[in-house]
Amino acid sequence: MHQNELPALRAPYKLDAGEGIRYAFGNHLATLIARPEQLGQRACGSVLTGAKGAKFPLHRHLSTHEALFVLDGVISLVLAGHSYLLTPGDYVNIPAGTPHGYEFADHRGKLLSWAFGGNASQAYSRLGKLYAGTVYVAAEERIDWSLLDQAVDTEVIADGDKSNHEWSPKLTFAPHGIHPFVLAASEGERMIAGDQLYTILGNQTHSGGVFIALLTEGPIGQAIPRHRHERVTELFHCLNGEMEMFAGDGFVSLTPGDFLHIPPATAHSFQLKKHDTRFLGFITPGEFEPFFHYLCEPFDGYRYPLVPFPFRFDRVIQHLGELDLTVLERPGQPAGEVAHSR
Amino acid sequence: MHQNELPALRAPYKLDAGEGIRYAFGNHLATLIARPEQLGQRACGSVLTGAKGAKFPLHRHLSTHEALFVLDGVISLVLAGHSYLLTPGDYVNIPAGTPHGYEFADHRGKLLSWAFGGNASQAYSRLGKLYAGTVYVAAEERIDWSLLDQAVDTEVIADGDKSNHEWSPKLTFAPHGIHPFVLAASEGERMIAGDQLYTILGNQTHSGGVFIALLTEGPIGQAIPRHRHERVTELFHCLNGEMEMFAGDGFVSLTPGDFLHIPPATAHSFQLKKHDTRFLGFITPGEFEPFFHYLCEPFDGYRYPLVPFPFRFDRVIQHLGELDLTVLERPGQPAGEVAHSR
Repeated sequence: MHQNELPALRAPYKLDAGEGIRYAFGNHLATLIARPEQLGQRACGSVLTGAKGAKFPLHRHLSTHEALFVLDGVISLVLAGHSYLLTPGDYVNIPAGTPHGYEFADHRGKLLSWAFGGNASQAYSRLGKLYAGTVYVAAEERIDWSLLDQAVDTEVIADGDKSNHEWSPKLTFAPHGIHPFVLAASEGERMIAGDQLYTILGNQTHSGGVFIALLTEGPIGQAIPRHRHERVTELFHCLNGEMEMFAGDGFVSLTPGDFLHIPPATAHSFQLKKHDTRFLGFITPGEFEPFFHYLCEPFDGYRYPLVPFPFRFDRVIQHLGELDLTVLERPGQPAGEVAHSR
Repeated sequence: MHQNELPALRAPYKLDAGEGIRYAFGNHLATLIARPEQLGQRACGSVLTGAKGAKFPLHRHLSTHEALFVLDGVISLVLAGHSYLLTPGDYVNIPAGTPHGYEFADHRGKLLSWAFGGNASQAYSRLGKLYAGTVYVAAEERIDWSLLDQAVDTEVIADGDKSNHEWSPKLTFAPHGIHPFVLAASEGERMIAGDQLYTILGNQTHSGGVFIALLTEGPIGQAIPRHRHERVTELFHCLNGEMEMFAGDGFVSLTPGDFLHIPPATAHSFQLKKHDTRFLGFITPGEFEPFFHYLCEPFDGYRYPLVPFPFRFDRVIQHLGELDLTVLERPGQPAGEVAHSR
């Protein structure tokens, strides 16, 4: 039971939705769910919410690569000079140096932020104070943005307040390489293994190999084989439905908003327990990406199909030597798998 | 365990997210979660999803009053000649006779529909067939909309395809009386009881007394006193977090997407079990609305406050004679309640 605190270094842990270290600044609330003290690397996960109109002004990080995923609400974003109207499921890649800022456009805005390589997430403790509540404060307290500087890897940029709300289109396919982009909900590189759809939102090239971000969705199904990585950390966010995970030495159940940290050398597995369960995983370093290409077949659709595809664990086994993967159980075929005609 | 079937008349029941009687038509999927056979009245609850671009053409119902709540995704709606871009949390009131139609604007659109007074929800079985899957079919199968007629209280209207996508503003306050309207997420009549925020989306006047729709949100808290209604049916949808409900003769846990039917004469209670838990209730008939005005204090904010307000069960007790309410437990003050300065 963690209340406004987080566990020790490299311990596997689950946080219930809303739990974490909470900082209130003005009518924003930042909830830190994992920091370098837990992750053993310069990285930080946060959930950002705010009142309608709460605004984080245009800024940039020199060392921090940030990725955003919209969990709820409508949010306007400025990224590298373009304006976007973000809605749930959109994904934003923000390489170090990219000017960005956002404003909550309704009362329910909720952003998941993962920051890698720098300490920009320390900005929240600079700006605000520890807060016992779990939703933002409605009060209109002024925020002193001048508290931010290079010591927290955050440079606030004069905005020019161009107020140009011509929305740029969100991408349906992310460009290769370290570029800022906004990927529309459900878009990305889509693949199927068995009855589960995997969608890569951020691939290795987008962060220079630091991490990948991918969605997994599927029907009620069987547990995947328990396995372990020696270097790879996995960061799971349940978005829809319910999943049961084996983590270290026991099972935990995740429902929407829950977070699970799987550090290296931790046995783990997942099983989808409800129809149309969906989760988002950040995996660091990104070198584990080929695993998904071995396991899956490319797929054009956007939702998991009624009839399962092949589950190419055979290909994973062929490439075990090049993957940071120790399989701890004999993998079975998913129940009810049938030959799939393409 | 109900799979593509629903329970007997006026039985309390829970459906896991995604469960219900599922009809596929083209690239739409309608999941019926409660019908007259369960509810004992002309009413039906459905969850509607579809592929990006899936469109339900402009139509109207002569007897059916419909209410929509956006559960996920982005959806364009035409209502009484105006176009709206719906995002999660928006609420739509559609009195009988009002032309309306919608199109899923991304891959994640999900609408909750409650239909009262007519049998328009039978349109789904006319249009489609029972389907084992739990997500829509991507295939581009043509839908024969001419199958709809007065026997399923649905008249398809020539569209004129004006394609005028100038979005009308969503309301922040719903007008009195039986009018079509679109209420923006989190807007509505807001009230506090103890540490919980209640938001009335649809009041009695909006449906001529047939039903009310209201959101409840709050922190981890105590169970409300068990109680029972003799005529009132309550239809609960968990949206965020987790809640435990007492229903009839035992406890059930609801997480996002789960549905619970509480028919008349059923003892029930709820307890919020996670931070920032939120649920939507449809309550029919709407005559129970005054209960919330007795229990609550008016509130201008949009999220539950850190410091609880009074819990005016004393006022409820004073008006018990006029409410369809039998309290089965002694109500206590919420834990940690303190005097609140207004």
